[in-house]
Amino acid sequence: MSDLSPMDLYEKLTAQGETVRSLKAQKSPKADVDAAVQLLLQMKLDYKRVTGQDYKAGCPPVDGEMLEEHGAVLEDGDDQVDPWSVSSSSAKGVDYDKLIVRFGSSKIDQELVDRIGRVTGKTPHRFLRRGIFFSHRDMHQILDAFEKQKSFYLYTGRGPSSEAMHVGHLIPFIFTKWLQDVFDVPLVIQMTDDEKYLWKDLSLDECHRYTVENARDIIACGFDVNKTFIFSDLDYMGASPAFYRNVVKVQKHVTFNQVKGIFGFTDSDCIGKISFPAIQAAPSFSSSFPQIFGERTDVQCLIPCAIDQDPYFRMTRDVAPRIGYPKPALLHSTFFPALQGAQTKMSASDANSSIFLTDSAKQIKNKINKHAFSGGKDTVEEHRKCGGNPDVDVSFMYLSFFLEDDDELEKIRQDYSSGALLTGELKKSLIETLQPMIAAHQERRRLVTDDIVQQFMSPRKLHFNH
Amino acid sequence: MSDLSPMDLYEKLTAQGETVRSLKAQKSPKADVDAAVQLLLQMKLDYKRVTGQDYKAGCPPVDGEMLEEHGAVLEDGDDQVDPWSVSSSSAKGVDYDKLIVRFGSSKIDQELVDRIGRVTGKTPHRFLRRGIFFSHRDMHQILDAFEKQKSFYLYTGRGPSSEAMHVGHLIPFIFTKWLQDVFDVPLVIQMTDDEKYLWKDLSLDECHRYTVENARDIIACGFDVNKTFIFSDLDYMGASPAFYRNVVKVQKHVTFNQVKGIFGFTDSDCIGKISFPAIQAAPSFSSSFPQIFGERTDVQCLIPCAIDQDPYFRMTRDVAPRIGYPKPALLHSTFFPALQGAQTKMSASDANSSIFLTDSAKQIKNKINKHAFSGGKDTVEEHRKCGGNPDVDVSFMYLSFFLEDDDELEKIRQDYSSGALLTGELKKSLIETLQPMIAAHQERRRLVTDDIVQQFMSPRKLHFNH
Repeated sequence: MSDLSPMDLYEKLTAQGETVRSLKAQKSPKADVDAAVQLLLQMKLDYKRVTGQDYKAGCPPVDGEMLEEHGAVLEDGDDQVDPWSVSSSSAKGVDYDKLIVRFGSSKIDQELVDRIGRVTGKTPHRFLRRGIFFSHRDMHQILDAFEKQKSFYLYTGRGPSSEAMHVGHLIPFIFTKWLQDVFDVPLVIQMTDDEKYLWKDLSLDECHRYTVENARDIIACGFDVNKTFIFSDLDYMGASPAFYRNVVKVQKHVTFNQVKGIFGFTDSDCIGKISFPAIQAAPSFSSSFPQIFGERTDVQCLIPCAIDQDPYFRMTRDVAPRIGYPKPALLHSTFFPALQGAQTKMSASDANSSIFLTDSAKQIKNKINKHAFSGGKDTVEEHRKCGGNPDVDVSFMYLSFFLEDDDELEKIRQDYSSGALLTGELKKSLIETLQPMIAAHQERRRLVTDDIVQQFMSPRKLHFNH
Repeated sequence: MSDLSPMDLYEKLTAQGETVRSLKAQKSPKADVDAAVQLLLQMKLDYKRVTGQDYKAGCPPVDGEMLEEHGAVLEDGDDQVDPWSVSSSSAKGVDYDKLIVRFGSSKIDQELVDRIGRVTGKTPHRFLRRGIFFSHRDMHQILDAFEKQKSFYLYTGRGPSSEAMHVGHLIPFIFTKWLQDVFDVPLVIQMTDDEKYLWKDLSLDECHRYTVENARDIIACGFDVNKTFIFSDLDYMGASPAFYRNVVKVQKHVTFNQVKGIFGFTDSDCIGKISFPAIQAAPSFSSSFPQIFGERTDVQCLIPCAIDQDPYFRMTRDVAPRIGYPKPALLHSTFFPALQGAQTKMSASDANSSIFLTDSAKQIKNKINKHAFSGGKDTVEEHRKCGGNPDVDVSFMYLSFFLEDDDELEKIRQDYSSGALLTGELKKSLIETLQPMIAAHQERRRLVTDDIVQQFMSPRKLHFNH
């Protein structure tokens, strides 16, 4: 019956409400009224379970709403965040403090940022200093162990749904490279080409080709080939019995009810989607990579990722102790906003929704000037008088991702807020930050030969100190 | 809502029936009655879909009933046949003619048996002559192509749930070896150790060990190492990107609704079970074995198996054209009865339920004399007078599987029916048939070295003529 649509359920519930009302109006026998009411209540519970909403007479179900884990259903005004869609009604974007409460993770506070600085002896990355990586699970445990010379490894990934990657896609990789450098630990990067095949209207060969093309951009971020293994699911599953064994182990310990609750799968979803979460979970366990970790099954994993990937790893952390493995720790980033504003969705198919890694200096300039949502006022006079709003200004948001100098960023914020800095000038700062950054990326990518890609993607031993 | 139990649904339906009755009794407004009736009808449809039974007031749902594909629900007295359980209320066992109608397959009639004889130039195997392989899908198509020099390949398998294999487990392998010999075609044998891990309380290593032990017994059936590839799912998935690609292709084209309908999975089943059918489907496509078939994706597959495996291949045949592959053809066998009778279940954990491949001559003799269900009469006098019933006599059934000489078997049948042959004498025939057969198997198995197992289980090119 779960393949009844929310609308079907709504209509049945409405009909049953009518039945109850008329039974009462007619002063029908108590037993009849009770039976009808009981059915009504059960239907309301079912409705809430399926739609994540309370039934309200006259209010049909909102399309696309998803079931949340542990019955934590969405309230009006809540942001929607899951691996396939992110939406917010606020120009500032998603309310991340609310998300920490809803997901049950921990805030990355100043104390943790300072501790990372102390432990590594390096200035914490700007993504940490500015709350771009804002939430974590068990990061203190990673640091405790690291201080005792106990090693860990990094795991991140990408779903290669097209050749086109934009600057937002770099966020986890820029940060992961920094983590690899300051902790000197091995890193595995999963390219979920199987997932993209299952979710998109693409052939296996297309998904695999995007994996290789995206791997070039990832490698261009500067990862150390001696410490980094990049793998295509389609290749590695067919190359590593150890990986498949861990996939099957996870698959044995997760029910359809659970993935339905966590990911909102329905009975109409293909069985590939339903079992895929186990494939994203498996790299969280060091025994999936015997070529790197030998027989060790206890090397803990730290996963830097955008917060929308957390459902996969909540599931993974739930399963881990039941199959004898340590839970992976996590560092969560905020979302990278579209040029048009933090509440619109970036799309790889809309070239104007972000700055792509293939954009020329001229395209970067034009896109920012033409499409970047501005927090400035309508006229120069008004702007000078009242100042702009950096909190909703996309150019300022992008600068906070990419401008390294904290003082310079703070000055821009103050000047923009006061009206001393005009929108055109703010945009100029961003253009001058992104143009050389993208050009340098393109130059590094040009040097990534097929041979180098092949090296990164070959299962092999990695070199690291701990 | 599909995780409502059949009993929950039954109770709700009963309550709703009461509501309708009282609405009518009170001459409530037509709209109210109609709404309640409509709901009742929908609930009845849902009930039938979930339980496979019509709702009858006062008759709670029968536990364990399964949903059949294409709405062909079980009727009272029908046998239950699916990959995990087979049960029948008749001492003769499952009604196979009924099963052909229910599964929508074709009967192997005399014409087909004769044609196989003509095409191969060999006497059809006793399993064909005696209706032990009784049902098929597309076997004429295989023969048409074979007559035009178009090759096919054989695929069969085994779920290695324990070390102990009994004579019944040999049926598909004895027959497959004959097919390999007379058609001179390559053969792949899937050991579903991943399936056994998912379904049973066993470790991955145990399941893999059973695979290797069972492979020894299979090899001892006499397969040609140059034409036969035996593979563990746990190994081959991690050794063949081509195999995983076909698994993912199938997984993309089958929904949870479909496997729920075909296999009776529920929301409480683990996601590994739910996606497993794709893994049993994939070897039906020649592109899963590029080491054998090169780039050819169009070599048709013929699957000899017990009829309880048909649900997997109904699903496979449904998917095949949608992913550009030929449908596999099938040859279905009847079930091998337990010593205690055709309606009881054989169990690898009950040493007395069958003749095991490890039994000594003495154990064989004792088991048959002590446990084989007899169709004879209670006293010698009565037996001489009225004769025995070979149709329910397990010793006679076993002889029909293993005694090669048709005339001898027919004579035994007639003499037993007439009373000329006593139960003890019938059992003696069986003992004298099985003792040398099992001894020869044990001797051949003894010669199967680790090296030979390794050869059979290495992905490699096979030699065959077509």
